[in-house]
Amino acid sequence: MSTLDAVLAHIDRDIDHSVERLFALLRIASVSTDPAFAGQCRAAAEHVAADLGTIGFDASVRPTAGHPVVVGKSNGVKAPHVLFYGHYDVQPVDPLNLWKTPPFEPRIDTLPDGRKIIVARGSCDDKGQFMTFIEACRAYKTVTGKLPLNVTAMIEGEEECGSKNLPGFVRDNAAELKADLALVCDTAMWDANTPAITTSLRGLIYEEVKITCADRDLHSGQFGGAAQNPIRLLAKVLGAMWDDNNRVTIPGFYDGVDDLPADIKADLAALGLTEETFLGPIGLKHSAGEKGRLLIEQITTRPTAEINGIIGGYTGEGAKTVIPGEASAKVSFRLVGRQDPGKIKEAFRQFVRARLPDDCKVEFGNFGAGAALQLSFDNPALTKAREVLGEEWGKKAVTVGAGGSIPIVSDFKSVLGMDALMVGFALDDDRVHSPNEKFDLKCFHKGIRSWARIIDALAQG
Amino acid sequence: MSTLDAVLAHIDRDIDHSVERLFALLRIASVSTDPAFAGQCRAAAEHVAADLGTIGFDASVRPTAGHPVVVGKSNGVKAPHVLFYGHYDVQPVDPLNLWKTPPFEPRIDTLPDGRKIIVARGSCDDKGQFMTFIEACRAYKTVTGKLPLNVTAMIEGEEECGSKNLPGFVRDNAAELKADLALVCDTAMWDANTPAITTSLRGLIYEEVKITCADRDLHSGQFGGAAQNPIRLLAKVLGAMWDDNNRVTIPGFYDGVDDLPADIKADLAALGLTEETFLGPIGLKHSAGEKGRLLIEQITTRPTAEINGIIGGYTGEGAKTVIPGEASAKVSFRLVGRQDPGKIKEAFRQFVRARLPDDCKVEFGNFGAGAALQLSFDNPALTKAREVLGEEWGKKAVTVGAGGSIPIVSDFKSVLGMDALMVGFALDDDRVHSPNEKFDLKCFHKGIRSWARIIDALAQG
Repeated sequence: MSTLDAVLAHIDRDIDHSVERLFALLRIASVSTDPAFAGQCRAAAEHVAADLGTIGFDASVRPTAGHPVVVGKSNGVKAPHVLFYGHYDVQPVDPLNLWKTPPFEPRIDTLPDGRKIIVARGSCDDKGQFMTFIEACRAYKTVTGKLPLNVTAMIEGEEECGSKNLPGFVRDNAAELKADLALVCDTAMWDANTPAITTSLRGLIYEEVKITCADRDLHSGQFGGAAQNPIRLLAKVLGAMWDDNNRVTIPGFYDGVDDLPADIKADLAALGLTEETFLGPIGLKHSAGEKGRLLIEQITTRPTAEINGIIGGYTGEGAKTVIPGEASAKVSFRLVGRQDPGKIKEAFRQFVRARLPDDCKVEFGNFGAGAALQLSFDNPALTKAREVLGEEWGKKAVTVGAGGSIPIVSDFKSVLGMDALMVGFALDDDRVHSPNEKFDLKCFHKGIRSWARIIDALAQG
Repeated sequence: MSTLDAVLAHIDRDIDHSVERLFALLRIASVSTDPAFAGQCRAAAEHVAADLGTIGFDASVRPTAGHPVVVGKSNGVKAPHVLFYGHYDVQPVDPLNLWKTPPFEPRIDTLPDGRKIIVARGSCDDKGQFMTFIEACRAYKTVTGKLPLNVTAMIEGEEECGSKNLPGFVRDNAAELKADLALVCDTAMWDANTPAITTSLRGLIYEEVKITCADRDLHSGQFGGAAQNPIRLLAKVLGAMWDDNNRVTIPGFYDGVDDLPADIKADLAALGLTEETFLGPIGLKHSAGEKGRLLIEQITTRPTAEINGIIGGYTGEGAKTVIPGEASAKVSFRLVGRQDPGKIKEAFRQFVRARLPDDCKVEFGNFGAGAALQLSFDNPALTKAREVLGEEWGKKAVTVGAGGSIPIVSDFKSVLGMDALMVGFALDDDRVHSPNEKFDLKCFHKGIRSWARIIDALAQG
């Protein structure tokens, strides 16, 4: 029996304990975007560091201006050297009333089709995912006494709110963190049976905008017809961001956005993603994206504008005839290609300012401005990973772009000179960022096995 | 000394007790639009009925499908007969954090310019106002043993949320409620020194609209660029309600809206209301109303559309990259002239439906649909009231339209055949419907004296 076979067999025998260890982490409500959960974020960091310690890593909790970063070093062989990146923070849970069970009380459930799932906030994004790698390392350590790779693990706590402090942390600790390759487990399968390697990520700009008109809330009979209404302004200004072809109208928005080469586009079209298969499961029929684009382009290689939240005026039960003094919205943009985050952020702010009367005020806040990332198809790690994923799943891995963003992966390239191998086991129906988030037990189990295979392939050089 | 002089002198001597009696009513949190306060609304009704009883009225609390109506009868002389209308319910208090002191703990404060004010939710709208009439009645009863008018008081509990059950109550009790004239104290002075008689009211339609797209909240990276966003739809649809001249674009909206006769328009223009004097105190400079209209037209004789509230997606601290499944708004319309509330409500709903993709759902709710009201300038009661108000305030009363709505006053005309004399003592800076609502003590005191004079003038026939 090869080492790999022994490790895989151990993973299978120990899967219930792996699930227990994941549950312990899932119980910690490490919501990064809300300051009320700062203590839980710290607790999660300490838990991860302690867990890495149990498999022989030198691990510590490193402070930042925000939530801490966990750095662990395997302290065994020197090469090949990989930097594994994950995040212990999770999305907010709201709306809480739509969760069937409490979001931080993890449980196993069985779907009507017989699939077993792990249900909790973070079960997929990212705790379940990064634990597939940790558990693979644990299996190696348990079976062979060591890891065949030099692993530095960097598990941060602010990915869900823009990783604001991480670029600085990476720069400040570049010598310690630089490796031959970055590994990331925070992306998706192509479908439940087909693994994927993610070769591009969209960038993300996240803005908050607050418009203030009168210095207080007003009676809409007394002042209606004369007083400016900030909700009306917000609706008009934000609504103007798209034209009738669903293209974003902000000046310069499409600078740096290239059309796909014909062959790549043909490959993507051949994957056969349709409105029915993609939108049907969420109760929609028609794409709201740029007219004239393939659906797969719209969700991976085209940029977007989005209103993530809006609030103003009276939102309680019944009626209140008020003209509010202020209204706010959260607006984000997914970037592709060479779009410049700083320029687009300024162009958005100018777009808003230009449409406001001079007696109204606007305030902006920013929660991130990261560029898109395109990885090379030539990387030997990618070729090896494709092969061993095929061995695990019985189907060749698809190479595809992701619609989402992982801000720090760009810095791995620009600051540390590293490519990233992004392999993940999420499914489209995992409800990440939604109530009742889940992770298929099969994805967790085979994810651990997949990383064991990838570690073995990378170690062989 | 005439009877009137004796009554006025008593009002002056008893003003502190009048304020105490008002405070007792202000302490009851009779918020009608929120079902959580139903018990307090009932308590307020019982309080008012008991108070009317202390001045010799036969008063009772009459049930409706919602909050009860108080009906009291003075049981003295038979004629002239007036129906006094007021409301014991108040607006919600939110945002609570902007109140300097608790909204249901009334207090006297002194403004920097020396004016004494009564501060509480309802201090002006409508408890302080209707108590000016009750206290005038009390003064007559105390000084002379009787009222010189036959007074039926009808004090309802749902005015702030559309008086839904009152039209039916008025119809069902028409014989009991019909009088020669309706009296209403829920409108404003022209300015702090100039009384006003309100001769028109705008109508009010209040709608709630909820748009649903996906069947759950979505990850904006995974689905962004394809999934429809209900906040974007709501912004585009509601933003489309106004053109660049700030006219409402809903088809048929201006049917039944007439231009003012040239002479009336000239009279209104001569009142000299400017953007500086009207909008300056609330921190604005420019009217947002229909271009080409006088400011006073925009706030009294032109119709409006307004977004009173909007909510959707993530509105907490920080960032959440979500595409929500639904978004809602509260939308209201002030009506004038012969605009048909039912037609406009349907036109609005059709306006929204026509702009939605067929895979999105919309739900509407209604909280009122009442027409505008124009009163006759020929009414002898109006002439008398103008004269005696001039005696109290030292300046002739202005006759002007109100921007707001009092839904039941139209029914007084159509069901009970009565005109309404609407005299009120609110000031533009009373912050009705806002935090820190106030009523000037001078307005309360001179308001009681004003009603005493009006009662005297009406009684003389």
